Amino acid sequence: MYSQTNDRQVMNYKLYDSPPSGNCYKVRLLLTQLEIPFDRINVNILQGATRVPEFLQKNPAGKVPVLEIQPDVYLSESGAILAYLAEGTEYFPRDNRLLQTRVLQWLFFEQYSLSPNLSRPRFFISVAKQQDKFAHLIDHWRNLGYQALDVMEQHLEKYAFFVNDSYTIADIALYSYTHVASEGGYDMSKYPAIQAWCDRVKSQPKYIGIKE
Amino acid sequence: MYSQTNDRQVMNYKLYDSPPSGNCYKVRLLLTQLEIPFDRINVNILQGATRVPEFLQKNPAGKVPVLEIQPDVYLSESGAILAYLAEGTEYFPRDNRLLQTRVLQWLFFEQYSLSPNLSRPRFFISVAKQQDKFAHLIDHWRNLGYQALDVMEQHLEKYAFFVNDSYTIADIALYSYTHVASEGGYDMSKYPAIQAWCDRVKSQPKYIGIKE
Repeated sequence: MYSQTNDRQVMNYKLYDSPPSGNCYKVRLLLTQLEIPFDRINVNILQGATRVPEFLQKNPAGKVPVLEIQPDVYLSESGAILAYLAEGTEYFPRDNRLLQTRVLQWLFFEQYSLSPNLSRPRFFISVAKQQDKFAHLIDHWRNLGYQALDVMEQHLEKYAFFVNDSYTIADIALYSYTHVASEGGYDMSKYPAIQAWCDRVKSQPKYIGIKE
Repeated sequence: MYSQTNDRQVMNYKLYDSPPSGNCYKVRLLLTQLEIPFDRINVNILQGATRVPEFLQKNPAGKVPVLEIQPDVYLSESGAILAYLAEGTEYFPRDNRLLQTRVLQWLFFEQYSLSPNLSRPRFFISVAKQQDKFAHLIDHWRNLGYQALDVMEQHLEKYAFFVNDSYTIADIALYSYTHVASEGGYDMSKYPAIQAWCDRVKSQPKYIGIKE
């Protein structure tokens, strides 16, 4: 069993989690692949459960995922959680500062250029069912989202994975919203390299799907 | 003189830079505070200079800043560049995985929740002068931007800096767009703790302003 710190002996990690969230799924996927046991606590975003004082104490930004790694020690921001968990494992290149920076580059690219533009249309179309009300914003996001997918497609035409030709947390982060992009109305048929890479991610050891 | 790698002996770092960009300013500020010499190459965003093939070879995402650290080795994404440069210095907590994760948390918060919502209104109002055309988007960004500023204000009511009560790259990243938020129409008078923190950042050794 993978063991990181002494606190692992006294409590399971607790993941404050929303099942449809891609940002939460990233953390579930990595925890599972690292064989770290954790408890899932469902936070109902639609009912405002991230905006109540009890939750804001865990993450003042009012967002999931939040990972409790020791009693009352909470990590937030999926990219930071992935880096924390993967440190020292095969999922984050070791002892190579440039490769670690490449991973961080893709994690920031994902959070700035990709995921907001994929997740928000997906939320308003497939979760909140408010597509018409937010049509002008959805158009704006989709233009930016296609630009980000173009950058990924171009990279994956040359490489099997995003960094160092091996599966890292960069792939986990980028995969999360990309593989469900069609739920936000994205036409993924024009991205064969992305689709082939999604299949490679799915074939990784101990993979779990977003609905598991 | 701070020297990181052998390549420092053969060439200065080259920063592909846009003077009004807060993301570029972060890198200029840190390089200056670390006393790392660098050459600035002005990239004219408004004239589409980040979208030409020569630039896209450096950063396929078509964005500044880009830092060339060795001939033909380019780093992109300001958060990743800050982490790369600050590794092993006082600006990124050493040998403490939890504190490093806290810094990364704020860097991701900045890129996801703060900077797009501050920088885009600033760009359309103060740079491109297209405020009317993008009014509905500016409203959307500003709502989210105020939420992010609220989170920062709340933190700074209790702490002098964002992590470990000392000045780190988390402060550099968060300061960059925040201190010019009024150029995007933000009313900063309701954020006294943020204003006091801005003054503390300005008083750091070797500080430079965004227009320097």
